[in-house]
Amino acid sequence: MTPSPPIQWNYQNMMADRIGAKDGITEEEYKISFPWLKEVYQNFIQDRTVGRVSCLDLPYADGVVEQVTALAKEVRGQSDFFLVLGIGGSALGGIAIQRALYPVHYNLLSKKDRGGGPKIFFIENIDPDEIASLLDVISLGKTTVNVVSKSGETLETLAQFLLIENALCKKIGKRAASTKFIITTDPTAGTLRKIAEKEGYRTLDIPEGVGGRFSVFTPVGLLPAAVSGVDIRQLLSGANDLNYYFNKCSLEENGALMGGFFAYLSVVHKRRNIQVIFPYSERLVGVAGWWCQLWAESLGKARNTEDKWVWTGETPISARGVSDQHSQLQLYMEGPYDKTIQFVRVESVACDLPFPRSRTEEAFRLFSDHTLGGLLRIEQEAIEATLTTAGRPNCRITLPRLDAYSLGALLYFFQYQTVLTAMLHRVNPFDQPGVEVGKMEIRKRLGIRKK
Amino acid sequence: MTPSPPIQWNYQNMMADRIGAKDGITEEEYKISFPWLKEVYQNFIQDRTVGRVSCLDLPYADGVVEQVTALAKEVRGQSDFFLVLGIGGSALGGIAIQRALYPVHYNLLSKKDRGGGPKIFFIENIDPDEIASLLDVISLGKTTVNVVSKSGETLETLAQFLLIENALCKKIGKRAASTKFIITTDPTAGTLRKIAEKEGYRTLDIPEGVGGRFSVFTPVGLLPAAVSGVDIRQLLSGANDLNYYFNKCSLEENGALMGGFFAYLSVVHKRRNIQVIFPYSERLVGVAGWWCQLWAESLGKARNTEDKWVWTGETPISARGVSDQHSQLQLYMEGPYDKTIQFVRVESVACDLPFPRSRTEEAFRLFSDHTLGGLLRIEQEAIEATLTTAGRPNCRITLPRLDAYSLGALLYFFQYQTVLTAMLHRVNPFDQPGVEVGKMEIRKRLGIRKK
Repeated sequence: MTPSPPIQWNYQNMMADRIGAKDGITEEEYKISFPWLKEVYQNFIQDRTVGRVSCLDLPYADGVVEQVTALAKEVRGQSDFFLVLGIGGSALGGIAIQRALYPVHYNLLSKKDRGGGPKIFFIENIDPDEIASLLDVISLGKTTVNVVSKSGETLETLAQFLLIENALCKKIGKRAASTKFIITTDPTAGTLRKIAEKEGYRTLDIPEGVGGRFSVFTPVGLLPAAVSGVDIRQLLSGANDLNYYFNKCSLEENGALMGGFFAYLSVVHKRRNIQVIFPYSERLVGVAGWWCQLWAESLGKARNTEDKWVWTGETPISARGVSDQHSQLQLYMEGPYDKTIQFVRVESVACDLPFPRSRTEEAFRLFSDHTLGGLLRIEQEAIEATLTTAGRPNCRITLPRLDAYSLGALLYFFQYQTVLTAMLHRVNPFDQPGVEVGKMEIRKRLGIRKK
Repeated sequence: MTPSPPIQWNYQNMMADRIGAKDGITEEEYKISFPWLKEVYQNFIQDRTVGRVSCLDLPYADGVVEQVTALAKEVRGQSDFFLVLGIGGSALGGIAIQRALYPVHYNLLSKKDRGGGPKIFFIENIDPDEIASLLDVISLGKTTVNVVSKSGETLETLAQFLLIENALCKKIGKRAASTKFIITTDPTAGTLRKIAEKEGYRTLDIPEGVGGRFSVFTPVGLLPAAVSGVDIRQLLSGANDLNYYFNKCSLEENGALMGGFFAYLSVVHKRRNIQVIFPYSERLVGVAGWWCQLWAESLGKARNTEDKWVWTGETPISARGVSDQHSQLQLYMEGPYDKTIQFVRVESVACDLPFPRSRTEEAFRLFSDHTLGGLLRIEQEAIEATLTTAGRPNCRITLPRLDAYSLGALLYFFQYQTVLTAMLHRVNPFDQPGVEVGKMEIRKRLGIRKK
């Protein structure tokens, strides 16, 4: 018997029998491409067997959990502030986990209400206004700084590091400052690795073959999570259990595979070029941002086929339920049929608020006997139904609750799906050649334009 | 002589001579549609004359500035916390202003460093996790609550209000609580207006004919701005001066008009369905979110032409420089040619940080003699140049600095542009019929599904 998966999914509203043949996938379209899906899946399994998709094996890495947990304990004991310097994949995974599992206003809580943990800041930009504002609200002497860069050469991260290291050394002296840094980078190569060795900074390794946007289950995502107080074993366990389920279930029961297949069919048969992620939870906004990078960088690729260039990639969009009902829904309902809506729902909220009966005006009668969490849920269901009736393709992923275990499964689901979707489109999910030209142009201009 | 505008724009990289005829607008395409632009502009001027575009006249409204300023002073004197309850257009304008003109970590500053002003929270969702987290970090007794809804009937806002009002009354008693509310709503109609009159809550009017997404220059946006300490006269003055410039300049010198025209041509001649706003400033992220609503709800419309349905609307996307270079740029460089990139740049940052010379490793040599603000600027220029070379259409809006005056002009620019772009597409910028079905479905389900 197939085990049951840690999270649920539903792709019925992608199908022609629900939303019509113009925008829904027909039986025929499904059948025509199914052999290709099978072939891709077999290649994927083959690739996994020979270790070519190591990002999906990460929950099993040895010793990392113990190392990260021990280091996080140290950090929690010695710091009131924890800064993560990183950009793109070096920041988005950590943000996704921290925002999902801790209160929205975490940094405004007292130390006691934070469970003794430090305030946490992800610095993922090089805006001087932001850095200046940060320095106004932290005490550098009580700060631990986690510098994250796979290559150890990321220009923006080096810039942040240069400024913060200098400020810290000035404040507490070079020797004391050396105890404040944790460098997460390549095991051997790069400028950051060299500096860490020279200065005796603590380090964590990003394993070979795992790029930034697939690194959430490496120390890149795990250290900030553990410093926040997340049970990272639970996180990995959710990922692990979903993988176990995927290994046992049929193709049709594999939600990540089928979701990727529907995304592929939407591009190929329906020419839809936009995929919206629409979580109904303030705390999943970070996951949406992380997914947008994963989807955009993995699928947005130029490839040359039979001497013709093809440009692929659905554009990911992050929306937020229910707020964006009052911002983007008009476009989703009446704009072009160019998008798929992917809802993410949490079945039961952590702490619900029942509506009081303090107001007798007619308008409040609707709320009686409901809770705020119930309203959130009803609104998601209503909007899903309305979009479906309007012939707008949509699907849904459901978490039983928003805890480390379910979140781990969700993050694993999306990575697994992204790799497979890229393979369906015949592109490499793991490279990003398109950003190299920009990087070179920046370096060129920095070299020339001394002010 | 034409006066000079408070902000600058540049649409050269939209043109065929820069990026090629496949994706750039050709002379011919421009010329073919120019008569339509002229006609639309004349209709627009006519509409403005008879008061049909009152959202663009708002900077001139009488007495509002004084009323809002006085009320804001009161709030600053009596509160440590200021909550705005609202959703969509009732929140996004206030957020845009507050985030743009105050430090990124404003709420973490001490009261003194906040200039004596209260901590500010915009509650724009109905997630119980968020509300619960909010109640953990504020002291209700020291809070002023601004409830914002044009109709006074917005379901989500009423739900927030019901919970917060009840909690406040329980905490400090009904009489004291009545001094804590400010209701921003329709001058006469709606549930919130009725409650305000009954309970003696202070009120501010949203003028007739101004919908939520165009209400940033009404008390909807102005009160939170003034409570933060923004000089709202300066804000309105920027808007006013840009309007004055537009009244004097030629069609070709009118950046909002020409930008709207290029957006229209991109849809009609190039079939591009995505418009990205890409500010290179952490503090402009709120403006980007506000613009996404403005663009989506105003342009995303179904219309019936000669018995055929047409679905219009570019999908707006909010990106963030430089962070999204490490997230979305790969897709923008190598994905489908389906988007226009609209950069927003700030010419001089408020407080720049020069790079120290504390590191001698080769990788840091590039930074010498540069500042962090300089790096931010060079990166924007480099990415703009790289996209242009790759034949990717882009344009740029430049603010001389990020102050109330320039921000006012920017917000005015986008509203003016949105109205004109909608008119070019022959849709009504001011309605949102597509969200009504969803609202009805929510009400239906609330009525049926009592738990």
